[in-house]
Amino acid sequence: MLFLKLFLLFSFFSFTFSLETFNSHLLPRPLIIRYPEDIETQFEKIDEELKLQCTSWRFAVETNNLSPWKTIPEECVGYIKEYMTGRGYKVDLERVLNEAGVYAKSVELSGDGKDVWVFDIDETLLSNLPYYVEHGYGLEIFDPVEFDKWVQRGMAPAIEPSLKLYEKVLNLGFKVFLLTGRSEKQRSVTIENLTKAGFQSWDKLILRDSEDHGKLATVFKSEKRSKMVEEGYRILGNSGDQWSDLLGCAPSIRSFKLPNPMYYIP
Amino acid sequence: MLFLKLFLLFSFFSFTFSLETFNSHLLPRPLIIRYPEDIETQFEKIDEELKLQCTSWRFAVETNNLSPWKTIPEECVGYIKEYMTGRGYKVDLERVLNEAGVYAKSVELSGDGKDVWVFDIDETLLSNLPYYVEHGYGLEIFDPVEFDKWVQRGMAPAIEPSLKLYEKVLNLGFKVFLLTGRSEKQRSVTIENLTKAGFQSWDKLILRDSEDHGKLATVFKSEKRSKMVEEGYRILGNSGDQWSDLLGCAPSIRSFKLPNPMYYIP
Repeated sequence: MLFLKLFLLFSFFSFTFSLETFNSHLLPRPLIIRYPEDIETQFEKIDEELKLQCTSWRFAVETNNLSPWKTIPEECVGYIKEYMTGRGYKVDLERVLNEAGVYAKSVELSGDGKDVWVFDIDETLLSNLPYYVEHGYGLEIFDPVEFDKWVQRGMAPAIEPSLKLYEKVLNLGFKVFLLTGRSEKQRSVTIENLTKAGFQSWDKLILRDSEDHGKLATVFKSEKRSKMVEEGYRILGNSGDQWSDLLGCAPSIRSFKLPNPMYYIP
Repeated sequence: MLFLKLFLLFSFFSFTFSLETFNSHLLPRPLIIRYPEDIETQFEKIDEELKLQCTSWRFAVETNNLSPWKTIPEECVGYIKEYMTGRGYKVDLERVLNEAGVYAKSVELSGDGKDVWVFDIDETLLSNLPYYVEHGYGLEIFDPVEFDKWVQRGMAPAIEPSLKLYEKVLNLGFKVFLLTGRSEKQRSVTIENLTKAGFQSWDKLILRDSEDHGKLATVFKSEKRSKMVEEGYRILGNSGDQWSDLLGCAPSIRSFKLPNPMYYIP
């Protein structure tokens, strides 16, 4: 009996060991890919770094620190998309337009009809976001033919906080001058689009005439502002999404830079 | 025997029930506070909203959209602290100073010794962060007496990416003019501090003289830049952390706005 027991025990052991040898070398091992344990933390860190770099790029854009640029950085497309379609853009717009409203209300107008607020149009009163959603939020190089088709549709919606400021300054008694880089040929569709979007009246609508084509926006807009000043107007407020709307000669007493990380106009 | 069993059973039951009654009404119940199940998500949302609002405030500061402000918003102290002491500030500094360096290298100098780069000093070449760490990162109202004591110690460290740009423009052959809102009385301690921090040479160090006190920084700096232009200098680059360093008359061909969400100088 003891002999039988010992025999069975040894048989069992030898079988077990042979099986183990067999298993570990000849049959495929289960395919479990082991990620590092902190893989989620690592992904979060990469994501955070990208956000930091793209926020820094946006800061450089909005402070006019970059040399003229043609497209947004490829790695920031997701960031810009999230900013433009999420709450970031809305919050920034509301802040700057609220600030402008507080200032407008604080200004004592002369009452002689010479107090002016200047507004740019694209990305200031009207939003071309529906176009840019279809064109990579600024990742694609600007296509003037395609963009012109979009403008001709006259479908750009109002930037709502701008519409509120617009109505406010009109009610306060400012003269409202619209100064845009759009061509004189686009006058009627621009009027149509503005009206449809809720902008009912203005005192001047200044577009690029044939003699203005080829001029940098800063030069064109500076010339037009200088002319306003020559005519006795006082430019008390100026709203634009490009620094070329705001810098140069005959600057406004207060300028308000609306956010726009999608394109740059020198 | 059966009777005994039944008796014990009923006794046990009655005792158990009486205990339960006793427990649930007279003894204090265990103090388990139940948070809503999504409490972490809710905290994250509040945190994200605060970050969004403070980032938006910082952009309004850096784009010069706010009316003159005296202290940072109380709810943004944590955000500004994280920005100034974490990677945000460093990354922003490196980007703008790198951009300035690329521009400086691209400029063709005339070689007549009239090509100028203007630098502001505080928060441009020298960092007062050690002072602001002790004063709430801009939450405390500016105390000129306390700040003066800090300046007199001459211990402000260099902003490293600025030091690199500084050396670069000197090597490229620019004349370097330092234009600061510091008082003429602080000339010697300023020279001492600059030298200690690694800024070895410059062509002019312009401080506020007695006649300049009380002038807005924009006015003071514009006057000094205009004088440079009158003397035949060409201002090709200008670095400053305040818009009052950069805007106004005789502006530079390119201006570089360094980040500073801690204080505002009109």
